[in-house]
Amino acid sequence: MTEKNPSAVLYATHDLRIEDRPVPEPAAGQVLVEVQAVGICGSDVHYYEHGRIGDFVVEQPMIIGHEAAGRICAVGAGVPESRLGELVAMEPGVPCRDCTECLAGRYNLCPDVVFFATPPVDGAISRFVVIDASFAHRAPDGVDAERASMAEPVSVGVWSCRKAGVGLGDRVLITGAGPIGLLAAQVARAFGASRIVVTDLSDFRLDAAAALGFETRRADSGETSEYDVLLECSGAAPAVTSGMRQMAPAGRVVLVGMGADTVPIEVPLIQGRELTVTGIFRYANCYPAALELIASGAVDVDSVITHRFPLAETEAAMTVNGREPNALKAMVLPQQ
Amino acid sequence: MTEKNPSAVLYATHDLRIEDRPVPEPAAGQVLVEVQAVGICGSDVHYYEHGRIGDFVVEQPMIIGHEAAGRICAVGAGVPESRLGELVAMEPGVPCRDCTECLAGRYNLCPDVVFFATPPVDGAISRFVVIDASFAHRAPDGVDAERASMAEPVSVGVWSCRKAGVGLGDRVLITGAGPIGLLAAQVARAFGASRIVVTDLSDFRLDAAAALGFETRRADSGETSEYDVLLECSGAAPAVTSGMRQMAPAGRVVLVGMGADTVPIEVPLIQGRELTVTGIFRYANCYPAALELIASGAVDVDSVITHRFPLAETEAAMTVNGREPNALKAMVLPQQ
Amino acid sequence: MTEKNPSAVLYATHDLRIEDRPVPEPAAGQVLVEVQAVGICGSDVHYYEHGRIGDFVVEQPMIIGHEAAGRICAVGAGVPESRLGELVAMEPGVPCRDCTECLAGRYNLCPDVVFFATPPVDGAISRFVVIDASFAHRAPDGVDAERASMAEPVSVGVWSCRKAGVGLGDRVLITGAGPIGLLAAQVARAFGASRIVVTDLSDFRLDAAAALGFETRRADSGETSEYDVLLECSGAAPAVTSGMRQMAPAGRVVLVGMGADTVPIEVPLIQGRELTVTGIFRYANCYPAALELIASGAVDVDSVITHRFPLAETEAAMTVNGREPNALKAMVLPQQ
Amino acid sequence: MTEKNPSAVLYATHDLRIEDRPVPEPAAGQVLVEVQAVGICGSDVHYYEHGRIGDFVVEQPMIIGHEAAGRICAVGAGVPESRLGELVAMEPGVPCRDCTECLAGRYNLCPDVVFFATPPVDGAISRFVVIDASFAHRAPDGVDAERASMAEPVSVGVWSCRKAGVGLGDRVLITGAGPIGLLAAQVARAFGASRIVVTDLSDFRLDAAAALGFETRRADSGETSEYDVLLECSGAAPAVTSGMRQMAPAGRVVLVGMGADTVPIEVPLIQGRELTVTGIFRYANCYPAALELIASGAVDVDSVITHRFPLAETEAAMTVNGREPNALKAMVLPQQ
Repeated sequence: MTEKNPSAVLYATHDLRIEDRPVPEPAAGQVLVEVQAVGICGSDVHYYEHGRIGDFVVEQPMIIGHEAAGRICAVGAGVPESRLGELVAMEPGVPCRDCTECLAGRYNLCPDVVFFATPPVDGAISRFVVIDASFAHRAPDGVDAERASMAEPVSVGVWSCRKAGVGLGDRVLITGAGPIGLLAAQVARAFGASRIVVTDLSDFRLDAAAALGFETRRADSGETSEYDVLLECSGAAPAVTSGMRQMAPAGRVVLVGMGADTVPIEVPLIQGRELTVTGIFRYANCYPAALELIASGAVDVDSVITHRFPLAETEAAMTVNGREPNALKAMVLPQQ
Repeated sequence: MTEKNPSAVLYATHDLRIEDRPVPEPAAGQVLVEVQAVGICGSDVHYYEHGRIGDFVVEQPMIIGHEAAGRICAVGAGVPESRLGELVAMEPGVPCRDCTECLAGRYNLCPDVVFFATPPVDGAISRFVVIDASFAHRAPDGVDAERASMAEPVSVGVWSCRKAGVGLGDRVLITGAGPIGLLAAQVARAFGASRIVVTDLSDFRLDAAAALGFETRRADSGETSEYDVLLECSGAAPAVTSGMRQMAPAGRVVLVGMGADTVPIEVPLIQGRELTVTGIFRYANCYPAALELIASGAVDVDSVITHRFPLAETEAAMTVNGREPNALKAMVLPQQ
Repeated sequence: MTEKNPSAVLYATHDLRIEDRPVPEPAAGQVLVEVQAVGICGSDVHYYEHGRIGDFVVEQPMIIGHEAAGRICAVGAGVPESRLGELVAMEPGVPCRDCTECLAGRYNLCPDVVFFATPPVDGAISRFVVIDASFAHRAPDGVDAERASMAEPVSVGVWSCRKAGVGLGDRVLITGAGPIGLLAAQVARAFGASRIVVTDLSDFRLDAAAALGFETRRADSGETSEYDVLLECSGAAPAVTSGMRQMAPAGRVVLVGMGADTVPIEVPLIQGRELTVTGIFRYANCYPAALELIASGAVDVDSVITHRFPLAETEAAMTVNGREPNALKAMVLPQQ
Repeated sequence: MTEKNPSAVLYATHDLRIEDRPVPEPAAGQVLVEVQAVGICGSDVHYYEHGRIGDFVVEQPMIIGHEAAGRICAVGAGVPESRLGELVAMEPGVPCRDCTECLAGRYNLCPDVVFFATPPVDGAISRFVVIDASFAHRAPDGVDAERASMAEPVSVGVWSCRKAGVGLGDRVLITGAGPIGLLAAQVARAFGASRIVVTDLSDFRLDAAAALGFETRRADSGETSEYDVLLECSGAAPAVTSGMRQMAPAGRVVLVGMGADTVPIEVPLIQGRELTVTGIFRYANCYPAALELIASGAVDVDSVITHRFPLAETEAAMTVNGREPNALKAMVLPQQ
C-alpha cells in the first residue's frame, strides 16, 4: 500500500473498503497516534452486519473499530513533547467535560460524547488517528500494543464489577464466555470474588474459561446455585431469567451483554430478595485500572486474542467469529 | 361481645370470622399490647380474596392484620415496667436477629422473620397481641393510635426513598396514588425531592394527591417528562415501562407496588442510561423515622384514612376498597 | 465614576484601591457578566488583613471577591445568544475538567482550578467579569442578584451536608453561627435533619439562629447532648474537641470552618465510636441545589445579609465585621 | 495438671495465675468449645502490664485471651448436634442483637456487647469456653486451630480495608509492621490494592514485611510518596502526622493502632485534600471473609506466628514481645 492513511471504511452492510484518508492534524490538546492494534468488538460486527445499532445508523461511510492502541507520533498545542513516542491505549469515547453528567463524574453518560466508530464519528482502524491527550493512556511497562488495545474490553469488565460492587466473599455468576465474559471473570477474581462460575453453550468457550481457572457450567445444564452477583455477558434473555432466580438476598445484577431488546423481570423475585438490576454503558475512569490489571497479569488478555489480521484484511477480521467456532477476539494490525 | 380476646380470623377465601382467642402471655423480652388501631393493607385484602400471596397460603385459620398500634398493658421478663401504658406502633416483622442477613443490618430479608398475618403467623386484629419489646416503638407526643398504626405504610415510603436515594434536586415520579403512593410522595418531599409528580387513573386519587400539594397527571395522558427517580406504587406493568422511559441518565427505579408478576425491562434503556432497578421487601430500621415524620406533620396520615370500623365489622373493612371508589385506607378499631 | 470597569483591587495588607481595569472579552465558551452583587467572605477579609491564606500569597495587585452574581451582557463563541440578559450566580472556581480529579467528579480538588480572588487570579468585585458559561448558573425565578450571590455560601452548606450524609433522623450540631453556620443549619433542615442545635459565643448570632427557628446553646455552656453529625463552622479548635465528644456511635464530623491550624483528635473516641472526620474544600456540583433551596425559601438568605455597600466603599465592607458586632454578611453592589 | 478447666486468670498487674474453673454449660443457642489455640494480642498484654485499658479496669480476677479457636464438644438447646466436633474460630464479641446499633448492622458498636477478656467478662485461655453458636464460625478445610484463631486479627485487617474502601488502583501506606500491620497489608493486597508500602522502625519487622512481598521503608527515613489510603497500625502519633501529609486528594485514613491518646490533625490538610479520617472498633461481619482469606492462602498467617506456649506458660507468652525483639504473635495452646 502506498496510501498515506489507509483506513477500514464501512460503506454499508457487508460493504467494507480500505481507502486512503487524510492524515489528521492534532488540534490543541490532542495527539496523533500511529495505530498498531485494534480489537474487533461485537458492536463493530453488528454495524457491519446490520448497518445500525438501535438509533445509531451508518448513513455515510465510517471508519470502523474502537479498541485501539498505538504510538504517539505528533502532539497538538499544549501537549508536552515528552509524550512523543509513548505507547498508548486510546479510550474511545471523549466526552464534552462540561455538562452535568461530565462534571458529576459520569462522563460515559455525556450526551455529547464523541465515540470512535459510533455513527457519524470515525473509528480507529486507520494508520493514523487523533485523540485528546487525556484519553490516550500510557501503557505500563510490559504492555505492548495488542495488550493495550485490550484495555477497552477489560474496562468493560472493571466497570461491570464496580457497578456490581464485587468484593471479597462474593459468589459471582458470569453468563456468557465470550471475550467480555472471560475478561469480566478475571476482573471479578482480581476484585476478590470468592467463587466464580462461568456459563456458556459453547464447549470451546467453556474450555477457555476453565483454562483460565474458572469453574464452568453449561448454560443449559439446569444446575443452580446461589450467587451474590450476576454479570450477564451473553445478551441472551433466558440467561437473565435463570441468573436472577439464583441470586441471594440483596444480590446485584449487571446487564453487560447486548442482544436482547427486552428481558422479563419477575417482580416477586426482585422484591422478595431486594435484588438490584442495572446495566452499563461503556465505562468511566476505568482505563488506568484496566491497564494495571493487564500489566500485573491479573487479567490474561493474550489468551483471549485468537486471530490477527493486517489492515487490508479487516473484513476477514469482522467475519471470523461467524466462520470459526473457536474464535474469540480478532485483532487488526493497521501498520501491517 | 364478652370474649376475652376477640379476633378477626380468616378461615378461607371470603370466610372471615370474629372469634375468641386466648389472651397471650408476653414471654421474656415481649410486651402485651391492647390493640387500638389496625389499618387494612392490600395484602390483607389479597389473602381475604385469594387465600394466598405467592407461596404463602392460608392453610389454617389465621388472624388477619399487620398495621397495628396500641398500648402496652403487660411486660415480659427483662422488659422495664416503665413501659407499661406506653402507646406503641408495632413493627410487624420480628426477625431472628442471629442470621447473616440480620447481623448485616438487612433484617427484613431474614429467612426466619415472624411477620403478623403472613401464614401461618397470626396477625394483629385482636383485642390483645404480644410482640418483642424492641419492635414496639413508642409513639411520639401527638401521635395517637391510628396515626401510629400508619407508621407501617409510612415505613414502606421511607424504605422506598432510602433505596432510591431520594434527595435534594431529585425529580420523582410516583406511579399510583393509593395509600402507599400518597405516603411515599410525602416522604419523598420530606427527603428534599425537588419535583414530585403523582400519576393514577382514578380522579378521586389524583385529587387526593393534589390536595396534598402534589403535581398530578393521569396515567394514561401520554405526557412525559424527565425524572431521576421512579417509585412504582401501582403494581401495574405499563407503569413500569412508561416510567422507565422517562428516567434521566443514572435514574433509580424502585418497584414498590405488587400485582404484576413479570414486567418487561428494555435492555437498551437500562444500559444506555445506566438505570438502576430494585424492589423492596417490607423495610428495615424505618419505624423511628416514620413516626418522626408523622409527629412533625411532614407526612399527613389523617387524610389517607377514609373509613373506620369496629372489630366486629372487619369484613366490611376488608371490602370497602372494592365497594367504594373513594376509599383509601380503612382502619379497624379492635377496642370498639 | 467614569471608568469603564471599576474594580476593587487589593495591593497589600490594608491597601485596597478602586481602579479601572479593561473590560474583559469573553473567550470561546465564556460569558461576560455585569456584576450586580458580591458577598464578602471571611477569606476576602483574611487576604485584606494578612495578605495571604496559607500558601496563597497576594504578590501582585488582585481584584477581590468571589461570591458573585450578575447579568450576562455578552457571550463568547459557542455560547447561545439566548443567554444574553440572563441573571446568573457565578460559581467562582473553574476547574480544568481534564485531570483525574475532574473526570472523577471531584472537580473542586482539581489542582489547576482557577478560582476568583485566589492569588494570582482576579476576583469579581468589578463592574464586569468573564466566566465559563457552564459555571454561570441561571438564577431561578424570584432569585435576585443578591440572593443569587449567596449561592456560594449556601453551596458550602450543601457540600457539608452531603459530606456528612445528613438525612432524616439525624441530630446535627452546628458549631458557629456566622453566615456559614446559619446557612448550613438551614440546609441541614432541608435535608431532613431531625434535631439541629446551633452554638456560638455571640448572643447576636445565637439570636439570629433562634430567629431562623433553631435550638441554640452558648458554646461555653458546658451542656452536652448526643448528635449524629457535627458541622464545625467556627474554626475554633475547642469546638472540634467538645463537638466530637458529643458524637453518637458512627457519628460524622465535617470540618467546615477555617482558622485552627491543628486540632487534636482523641484516638480512643474516634475508634471507640467509629467516628468519621472529614473536611471540605469549597464544593462540587452544588450550585443548582443551592439556588433551588434559595428559590424555594428553604434557605432564607436575606436574613443573613446585614450590610450593603457601593463598589467605592468595598474597604468599608471588608471591615464591617470587625467594627460592628451585629454584622453577618456584607454585600458589595458593583453597579452602584 | 489434673484440673477440669485450667484457665489463665489475671488477678492484677503482673499477677497471672493458672487455676481451675468450672467447666461451663452451654445455654440455649450456645456451644461448648474445647479451646485449642489462643493468640496473644497487644490488648491482653496491656491488661497484664497496666491492669486497664481506658475505662475498662481489671477489678476482679479475669481469664485473659480473646483470639481463640477450638472444637465444639457440646451444644446447647436449639443448636444442631451436627455441629459437634466442628473446628471453629470464635468471634470474641457477642452483641445483644436487639439495640439500634445491632439492628443497623453495626453490632461492633453495641453498648451491651459481651467481649472475651474485656473486664469483667472472662476470656478464652481455658480448656473449655462457651460461646453463642452463631459466633462460632466453622473453619474451612485446611484451616487448623492456630490458623483459625488468627481470624481475629485478620478480621481487624478486613474491617480496616472495608472502612478505607481499599480497592483496585489504590496506593496504600501501612504504618507499623506488627502482626496487625502485616495482616492488614495482606488483606489490602487481596482487596486489589495496587501499591502497598509498609513502614516500621524495627528491621526485623520490615524484613517480615519484605518476606511477604511488600515494599518497605524505615518509618524515620523521611522519604515520602503519595497514597490513597493510610492504615495506621502502629499507634504512634508521628505516624499519623507523617502519613496524612502523604495522602492524595480524597485520601482515606483509618486509625487502627492503639497507643496514642491524642493525635494532632492539620486542618488545612484535611480540608484542602478532603481527607477522611476514621477509626475502627473491632469489626462486624468479617469472620467469614477472614477465614476465607486464610483458607485460600491470600493471607499467610503462619509466618506471623513466631512463638507457641502450653497453657501453663501463658505468662511467658504475655511477655515474649518485650523479651524477644524478633517476636510477632505468640500462641497459647490450652490443650497442652
